[in-house]
Amino acid sequence: MRTFKSLLIAVSLLGGLTSAFAADKLLSKADLAAANSLRERALADPTSWQLVESLTTEVGARLAGSTGDKAAIQWGLREMNRLGFSNVRAMEVTVPHWVRGEAECAVLAPWPVNIPTLALGGSVGTDPAGVEAEAVMVKDLAALAALPAGAVKDRIVYFSNRMDRTQDGSGYGRAVPVRTQGPSAAAALGARAIVIRSISTGSNRFAHTGALRYQPDVPRIAAFAISNPDADALERQFASGEKVRMRLRSTARDLPPEKSANVIGEIPGTDRANEIVILGAHLDSWDPGVGAIDDGAGVAIMMGVAKLIRELDLKPRRTLRVVLFANEEFGTSGSRTYTTAAQAESVRHVMGFEADFGAGPVWRLSSRVNPNQLPVVEQIQRALAPLKLARGGNAANGGADLDGLTRAGMALLSPDLDGTKYFDVHHTANDTMAQVDPASLRQATAAFAVAAWLAAQYPGEWETVTEAKPARR
Amino acid sequence: MRTFKSLLIAVSLLGGLTSAFAADKLLSKADLAAANSLRERALADPTSWQLVESLTTEVGARLAGSTGDKAAIQWGLREMNRLGFSNVRAMEVTVPHWVRGEAECAVLAPWPVNIPTLALGGSVGTDPAGVEAEAVMVKDLAALAALPAGAVKDRIVYFSNRMDRTQDGSGYGRAVPVRTQGPSAAAALGARAIVIRSISTGSNRFAHTGALRYQPDVPRIAAFAISNPDADALERQFASGEKVRMRLRSTARDLPPEKSANVIGEIPGTDRANEIVILGAHLDSWDPGVGAIDDGAGVAIMMGVAKLIRELDLKPRRTLRVVLFANEEFGTSGSRTYTTAAQAESVRHVMGFEADFGAGPVWRLSSRVNPNQLPVVEQIQRALAPLKLARGGNAANGGADLDGLTRAGMALLSPDLDGTKYFDVHHTANDTMAQVDPASLRQATAAFAVAAWLAAQYPGEWETVTEAKPARR
Repeated sequence: MRTFKSLLIAVSLLGGLTSAFAADKLLSKADLAAANSLRERALADPTSWQLVESLTTEVGARLAGSTGDKAAIQWGLREMNRLGFSNVRAMEVTVPHWVRGEAECAVLAPWPVNIPTLALGGSVGTDPAGVEAEAVMVKDLAALAALPAGAVKDRIVYFSNRMDRTQDGSGYGRAVPVRTQGPSAAAALGARAIVIRSISTGSNRFAHTGALRYQPDVPRIAAFAISNPDADALERQFASGEKVRMRLRSTARDLPPEKSANVIGEIPGTDRANEIVILGAHLDSWDPGVGAIDDGAGVAIMMGVAKLIRELDLKPRRTLRVVLFANEEFGTSGSRTYTTAAQAESVRHVMGFEADFGAGPVWRLSSRVNPNQLPVVEQIQRALAPLKLARGGNAANGGADLDGLTRAGMALLSPDLDGTKYFDVHHTANDTMAQVDPASLRQATAAFAVAAWLAAQYPGEWETVTEAKPARR
Repeated sequence: MRTFKSLLIAVSLLGGLTSAFAADKLLSKADLAAANSLRERALADPTSWQLVESLTTEVGARLAGSTGDKAAIQWGLREMNRLGFSNVRAMEVTVPHWVRGEAECAVLAPWPVNIPTLALGGSVGTDPAGVEAEAVMVKDLAALAALPAGAVKDRIVYFSNRMDRTQDGSGYGRAVPVRTQGPSAAAALGARAIVIRSISTGSNRFAHTGALRYQPDVPRIAAFAISNPDADALERQFASGEKVRMRLRSTARDLPPEKSANVIGEIPGTDRANEIVILGAHLDSWDPGVGAIDDGAGVAIMMGVAKLIRELDLKPRRTLRVVLFANEEFGTSGSRTYTTAAQAESVRHVMGFEADFGAGPVWRLSSRVNPNQLPVVEQIQRALAPLKLARGGNAANGGADLDGLTRAGMALLSPDLDGTKYFDVHHTANDTMAQVDPASLRQATAAFAVAAWLAAQYPGEWETVTEAKPARR
């Protein structure tokens, strides 16, 4: 928080310095005029919509290792070639192959009810007969740790932790530890299984899945999520004062790892072609929905940006590289493979963009650049003014897929997607095209297009950022 | 429509006649003052909320014939006794016992996908292997009838008909024939099964169930519903120009009929105790959700009204009778049993209220009274003014459970519940407490309480209505 404030101050101080800044380090009028054309073109262009519609209809769900995942790679290669990208290729990635199977969650007492549920991603299954036990309700990891010794031994632990709605997604970071760490934290205390209130801001009856992380030194127990309305009803059962008895069953299981791929295509640069402006999104999706907002929209935005720049024949100075990462959801092996490969390349990744937070609109421009480049960010912000973006400070943390490159010092520009409603739908069966607003998607594509184009044209150097990277949400 | 307009004119003409109306046919100042107290008390009273919460938590889903249905009867008797109603009793009703089982809907070509689906209520199941066939898309029954001979023989028929959003629910009446009549209409032309776009205004991925009606002279084929987002995606498959091949499977089946009951309780009248003002709602619900808005809210409103009138010790002149009908959803056998029994009673049903359209708010007061009583309706409308109700004309059609009594001439007062969002949720798994707004539920309870109390106090006679009843929505 302190870092963020001091950077905001830095931004406002630097605002007055632009005119004093060497002209050869600022964007040219021609490049800014081209940005205006690009923005207007993007606001009327249906490509992003058509791409996410095509991906969700022709491929649908595409969890790492699944047949849908393989179909998505072919889709990505086909569409990049159709759109005229250069150097279109698949970079092989090994991915885990977890299968959800079926899941059942029943309250047996005091009032019997079957609750729709989803296994958390990576969960082990239960015995075929399931796990039947008294359930203990705790709010979160701290409340679990504060229980008397033996309180959850042989029990089912229910985490009641509720996520807050925020525009920037910060509520997710605060709520999600029960999903990632809850299974092992409860298992370490002898629990037999866990159920969580979904990491969700929604009021519809959809359970939200998402990855858990088992610790190596404790037994692996099955983990489930239930929707907010079902969590409310379950908590009324606890409030009755009667003992709550539950039965859980899951056929989730791991299969041998599979081959997947990062799908890559470029708009080649001219005089600075060996400097890469990377446009990242992820091709995989959770299996209950069809991955429209997570992350079909991100894929569509990034491919739409490159398509527009190519179509307007803008000839960027730096190379724009669209990377559709494999397996963001289940351990980011696509990102890690890419980061390793990038270190061996003769090119340098100088600027990163990532779209993995829904289908827009963009409400803010954040950055993570060396302070020397803040005047250029200010120029880009002005070029985005017709799209009504706030300035978001210079502490952008980026998305999961650019994490490795960012830690190595790559600068970031982050047209921040509005997350207010994102967690109503994220990781549910309800992630469909009905959640994508065409006008917001076009606005988001326009914002990314302007920022990416101008980043590619910057006459100076995008310097390495040495400040420690803030924690990701 | 013509009837409705002319009645509106009649209402406005009669508006000026109140002062000339015999004073002994108008409501007293004391009764109107009591109505004000009742309204204010209702707006602060949590009883309706507590009742629907209790019913949905302790009983949950309660489809006719199920164990939940039986539990709901015990719940109703217990709660009516707890609230101090008189003559609390169960009236035995024979109900069908249909079991949903499991349902699967898959597109096999051009792009394979599994689609969440629900069997329509009353549907037969398929063979264990399912039905696999090419699918033919038609909009509605008229479009089906217009196809060339043999066009759907041995095919699956998909109805793409989309429901319009309206405040009064009229969009439902226009869209629902494909659900009720579609199965037999398609079977008569040789189809093997049908799938419908849900009769829904929602954009979430919930299929909506609801009863079908098989014709006796054609084969019974299995019938399924899919959500609006899935219908959109399926229509993109049809739009590809490729043949769409589907597979459907269902284990739905009929079991022998079961015993259920109408649950009845009263606030006894004084000098006109043999005249019944009936407050009807239905106790059963569809099985995928827990029946919060359909019709737990109606049950809670009506019980809340009677509780408030009793609690204020208002001593109504006519008897207020709360009837929680069995099996509204699956053939209205509770209503038919009640109507038959009412004909044998020594009391007369003179005025009906029904709440079966969600959890409020009430936006309008409609009526179906002999025009001689319109001045009193106008008085009631004025007593409701703080609740901001429009006047809805004198052509109320009532709900399904009062249909028999209304056809026999019983007058109706209808505080119309706002249906704008009702069909987003109706008949889905998403019918939970999260869809009930506490303030709207209190406002609805207040509106019904005022109107029911004043109807019970009317010093004149509620005359029989002889005009033909308009079609129900």
